Amino acid sequence: MAVGLSQLPTLYPVRGIRLAAGAAGIKYKDRPDLVVIEIAPGSQAAAVFTRNRFCAAPVTVARKHICETPPRALLINAGNANAGTGDLGIGDALSCCDVLAEKLGCRGQEVAPFSTGVIGERLRREAIIDALPTCVEQLAESGWADAAHGIMTTDTVAKGVSREFELEGKPATITGIVKGAGMICPDMATMLAFVATDAAVTRGVLQECINQAVTLSFNRITIDGDTSTNDSFVLLATGQGQAPLIDSADSVEFMQLAQVVSQVAMELAQAIVRDAEGATKFITIDVMGGVSEAACLEVAYTIAHSPLVKTAFFASDPNWGRILAAIGRAKIPELDVRLVSIYLDEVKIVSQGAVDAEYTESRGQAVMDRSEINLKVDLGVGSAAACIWTSDLSHDYVQFNANYRS
Amino acid sequence: MAVGLSQLPTLYPVRGIRLAAGAAGIKYKDRPDLVVIEIAPGSQAAAVFTRNRFCAAPVTVARKHICETPPRALLINAGNANAGTGDLGIGDALSCCDVLAEKLGCRGQEVAPFSTGVIGERLRREAIIDALPTCVEQLAESGWADAAHGIMTTDTVAKGVSREFELEGKPATITGIVKGAGMICPDMATMLAFVATDAAVTRGVLQECINQAVTLSFNRITIDGDTSTNDSFVLLATGQGQAPLIDSADSVEFMQLAQVVSQVAMELAQAIVRDAEGATKFITIDVMGGVSEAACLEVAYTIAHSPLVKTAFFASDPNWGRILAAIGRAKIPELDVRLVSIYLDEVKIVSQGAVDAEYTESRGQAVMDRSEINLKVDLGVGSAAACIWTSDLSHDYVQFNANYRS
Repeated sequence: MAVGLSQLPTLYPVRGIRLAAGAAGIKYKDRPDLVVIEIAPGSQAAAVFTRNRFCAAPVTVARKHICETPPRALLINAGNANAGTGDLGIGDALSCCDVLAEKLGCRGQEVAPFSTGVIGERLRREAIIDALPTCVEQLAESGWADAAHGIMTTDTVAKGVSREFELEGKPATITGIVKGAGMICPDMATMLAFVATDAAVTRGVLQECINQAVTLSFNRITIDGDTSTNDSFVLLATGQGQAPLIDSADSVEFMQLAQVVSQVAMELAQAIVRDAEGATKFITIDVMGGVSEAACLEVAYTIAHSPLVKTAFFASDPNWGRILAAIGRAKIPELDVRLVSIYLDEVKIVSQGAVDAEYTESRGQAVMDRSEINLKVDLGVGSAAACIWTSDLSHDYVQFNANYRS
Repeated sequence: MAVGLSQLPTLYPVRGIRLAAGAAGIKYKDRPDLVVIEIAPGSQAAAVFTRNRFCAAPVTVARKHICETPPRALLINAGNANAGTGDLGIGDALSCCDVLAEKLGCRGQEVAPFSTGVIGERLRREAIIDALPTCVEQLAESGWADAAHGIMTTDTVAKGVSREFELEGKPATITGIVKGAGMICPDMATMLAFVATDAAVTRGVLQECINQAVTLSFNRITIDGDTSTNDSFVLLATGQGQAPLIDSADSVEFMQLAQVVSQVAMELAQAIVRDAEGATKFITIDVMGGVSEAACLEVAYTIAHSPLVKTAFFASDPNWGRILAAIGRAKIPELDVRLVSIYLDEVKIVSQGAVDAEYTESRGQAVMDRSEINLKVDLGVGSAAACIWTSDLSHDYVQFNANYRS
């Protein structure tokens, strides 16, 4: 069950964006698995993609298409990742784009494809093509919630964030949806996020905006350290709101927009962790006192990826020796164990590298019994800091990922 | 259950080494948990220790003692790691050494302490001291099997390897015992290995010998990526056999000895993986065709640490997409996915970055159903290679590590 995630909040329409979901039966029966997002002419798009070199065919195609021209549509399917499929997979992705383009009256290069699901199987192109006409007919500005459901694979809840904000005193809107690393059904290892605003932003500035946002959101979460072949995050700006064009990354308006985009991205990223496969805990790992942000991140990820730390969180076990051991093997040469302090929420567990004099097992247990826990590590050697979010390692994680194609 | 490990083989005595195990009740009741290894005067010792900076008190003390003078005894306890215990832990370790030294008629600095078990609790020094007299009385050259049992924590079987070999035509003996990363009971995360030979070797040459051996054995295994605070590997050479002194690392005899030591270390290391917590599979990961050994190891460890790959092995699921995704995120810039081939035993699953034309799910399944599997990855860009061993991620792994102090 998702940790601290309630139902999908109200998702405000974004002028210039119409969405629809359909049931193509790609893998799932009787549930939406195909989403079309139509983007009005004059919009701009920026995107970041997985750094996995075995990236999926749709990632290759979407990256090229978005680089060449602002997209008029995004085509997303759930149930098949179209990854590890070689040139055949590229052809499948391209032909789906062509069919949708024809229906929307644009060029195939103006459609960007996204896929999530099983790796290594051919995409059922005909199923997608057959379902497209109904999808296109149903396109509507109010389609965000349907789209949030349509991109899910093994996520347990639909996930989205929406904000109304101001740019130079003018009202603006931003809405985003995400699907996560829920891998209840195996082979599903894809994070997809789509965020749109009615702000008017030039292309280069929009890219700068997404780069800033991704660094402190999607690039700060980990569930199992396995970077997927399909991760994609797209930011659209339709320019159909009332705020004037943002054409410089040095402007006050850019700062306002970048802050909202980063906050929306961070909430979406945290929603992925809250709905991680088998997750029973939402854990914030805050590392400070490092010589650099990179050093703090190395310590944070070493803790977050430790199966022993993760199983201790699952067991609500204040087993701080495992945290200490993970810090001790992090690859930062400047570590001085005698300067390290560790806190679980308000409880100091380690001072100067050994158990704190005030610490008691019952105080540690009281924190570990919570479902949302802040683990703070002070390295004591510098002034840099970094923060990431992760989940625990439960029986359900193994169950989900050991049950093949269940 | 341990994968492919039968009962403890015959462990040949090594002249100059006497061993005994006793029950101190440090954590376990009614089973041996204390081991003394007495070393004859004139022997040499070399050791390698954990690189975890939060190393345990006994590691700090043993490293210092062995550096200062050849040890006359090793004192090993199971059930408490004496880690995260600060200066008090150092004092506890030193006082145990002093008591044993007095009984054996040597100096405290001539005793090297080793501990394995729960992190962060004070060592019950009195329990150890009380059990020492009986241990010392029972010291015998035939005590290897008792010692193998006495150092176990949550290992399911006692583990040892013994060889008779020749040095310059003279008979020589080598015997070693190991305890593993079995963490059926949590907080146990220690690998301890003790190997002795009756060869005569100078100190510097013995250190060279252990350095070579550890690289291709204990430094090539991973269960969960968590380097313990207490890992120690000690190599003793009593010089009481018939072979002449080995005083140069360039000699033929050194090559002969180094080869035997490496083989014994490799078998002991593999035994740890076979008896890994919850292990149902013993997996060899062979990466070749890399630009360097470091690049091959990066790929191998990225695969071995992937929870998705590990759960797929547990499920006997030929889910090669997960292996491909792990390779794709390995941190080697020279990766060209179109050159990558992957084999599971005799079955080629991936050619040139996509599924092999001859591959079928049933052929993959036939391999995955085995309990010992060789995963071979050819990166296709160079001539370097590396090999590591790992286990799968099972329900029992989570069970063992989530059950606190069970």
